[in-house]
Amino acid sequence: MTATARVTADAAPAPRGHGRAGVTRAVIALGGNAMTAPDGRARPEDQIAAITRAAGPIAEVVATGAEVVLTHGNGPQVGNLLVKNELAATVVPPVPLDWCVAQTQATIGAMLLDALPPALARRGVPRPVAALVTRTRVDPADPKLREPAKPIGRYLPAEQARVMVEHGQVWRDYGAKGWRRVVASPEPVEILDAAPVSALLANGFVVVAAGGGGIPVVRDADGTVRGIEAVIDKDLTAALLARMVGADVLVIATDVPAVSLRYGTPAAEPIGRVDVRTLRRWQAEGHFADGSMGPKVEAACRFVESGGRRAAIAGLDTIAEAVAGRAGTVIEGSS
Amino acid sequence: MTATARVTADAAPAPRGHGRAGVTRAVIALGGNAMTAPDGRARPEDQIAAITRAAGPIAEVVATGAEVVLTHGNGPQVGNLLVKNELAATVVPPVPLDWCVAQTQATIGAMLLDALPPALARRGVPRPVAALVTRTRVDPADPKLREPAKPIGRYLPAEQARVMVEHGQVWRDYGAKGWRRVVASPEPVEILDAAPVSALLANGFVVVAAGGGGIPVVRDADGTVRGIEAVIDKDLTAALLARMVGADVLVIATDVPAVSLRYGTPAAEPIGRVDVRTLRRWQAEGHFADGSMGPKVEAACRFVESGGRRAAIAGLDTIAEAVAGRAGTVIEGSS
Repeated sequence: MTATARVTADAAPAPRGHGRAGVTRAVIALGGNAMTAPDGRARPEDQIAAITRAAGPIAEVVATGAEVVLTHGNGPQVGNLLVKNELAATVVPPVPLDWCVAQTQATIGAMLLDALPPALARRGVPRPVAALVTRTRVDPADPKLREPAKPIGRYLPAEQARVMVEHGQVWRDYGAKGWRRVVASPEPVEILDAAPVSALLANGFVVVAAGGGGIPVVRDADGTVRGIEAVIDKDLTAALLARMVGADVLVIATDVPAVSLRYGTPAAEPIGRVDVRTLRRWQAEGHFADGSMGPKVEAACRFVESGGRRAAIAGLDTIAEAVAGRAGTVIEGSS
Repeated sequence: MTATARVTADAAPAPRGHGRAGVTRAVIALGGNAMTAPDGRARPEDQIAAITRAAGPIAEVVATGAEVVLTHGNGPQVGNLLVKNELAATVVPPVPLDWCVAQTQATIGAMLLDALPPALARRGVPRPVAALVTRTRVDPADPKLREPAKPIGRYLPAEQARVMVEHGQVWRDYGAKGWRRVVASPEPVEILDAAPVSALLANGFVVVAAGGGGIPVVRDADGTVRGIEAVIDKDLTAALLARMVGADVLVIATDVPAVSLRYGTPAAEPIGRVDVRTLRRWQAEGHFADGSMGPKVEAACRFVESGGRRAAIAGLDTIAEAVAGRAGTVIEGSS
């Protein structure tokens, strides 16, 4: 719990109930399935089609009267940008990983700006939509910065990976699949651009923010803020953003209807409503895999433990019900 | 003047004096020199250094008490992205030109988010800064969409250009330099995301918006908004944005201290204060080159003709004085 404690100490959360009295303020984190084809392809047309489909469930949440902040992942998109960097490196200067994250915020943000207004209009809630470039501050002393562990981009044969290692990158051997780059994934400490999110929410906007976990930056001793080569987990960032904008509810949309115990075994059992203490116990027992459900469960627990009313992990199609606590795995405070 | 007339008819401008009473609201358009090294190089470190330098003059404008919207060009940045698209096309899907524009909004926006707060703090005006993803609508019937004329990206030998032409692109022979891609540059008709700019200005933010002329989109007959393969002139977009957010002043920052008559000849003569009718006459006489000063002069004229108090075209170092009408070429209404 050290990480959570540090976040709590460091960031300046907005007071709860920052929105209109009695109105739910929800942060919705969209997973990769909201932005790629069912087979995982991520051509521009695949991304546009997926986001157009996702706009319907999002508009349903807005139609309940909730104030909504959207955030999203960007794995395949950043992977593609890294490949372009590599293949063009002798002709144009490669850009750092924080720039790649920024680039995906704008392309995914623009697709949401195109797709949401028609979906909102169809449901009779013609609310304006805005997309913000958003930076997430991390601690330069975070030990995770020194232990790259998050695989990213494409697999390469050993001899090609070796060239990238000579250029200072960290690559790991994944056996038959080949080698893959691993990058640091530090803890989010502060959403530096949370203030415009709150201002736009208060003005009636649906806000897209902190995509891809936010652009990773550190603040140097002299106050300078600068990007770093890292990616931040988008669900952990969503939990922090939710707290900083005074949201009541955090919904993590994914491609399964709920979190399961003993996932992938014949004894798998979906979790419905659960108190955060029980979920932490199951987490400690190792029920939730590091690279998939683990960060979502961790993000949900952090949000509720820091005072959030409710977190839910649910299928994209049921996010409106999940906001109300009636679908997915719903996590609430321990009584 | 047909283009101006259409823009006036089509867009819904905010009323003048939309900001605080008596407070100047200024849109500042940053040119390429604010984002690249003096020799034109655009590696990430060159861009960060240039934007850090530009932050000083921008902060000076804010320190005068003005409300400030920043917009910016993106030529070298988009050029680099196009090269990456080409060189990686067999491995990852190329993305369309509107996505490239979006990508540059986020990287340049993030650099401004990093660079401005320290500059503002040094001048005692710690205003918050926000960067928005911004789309600019164009008319699908704009004849400029059918006549690609804006050169973009790198020069290639004829045989390589021919391959791109076979893929549907338009390339033009520039003689000894080689061939270069030309793209459509339609008229901006509406800044679709002007509303969040106004909302953030009203909440005290310095706002970065509509970079690279905005992400070019069209609205289909069924209401669908979608990106198109084009780039929009950043100064014409700045003039439209200034009108839509009810700005008093438009300043176009560039790498010369003022507009000149007979530029590049021994009889060159810088223009100081000028009324818009006189400037239009000089424009008609051919004083301002298409690819350089032409669009800046056109943008300044449009802004003043549509009711803007003052436009200025000035060196980056003098933008605070230019906002006040005391530096650069200052264009005001004809009396």
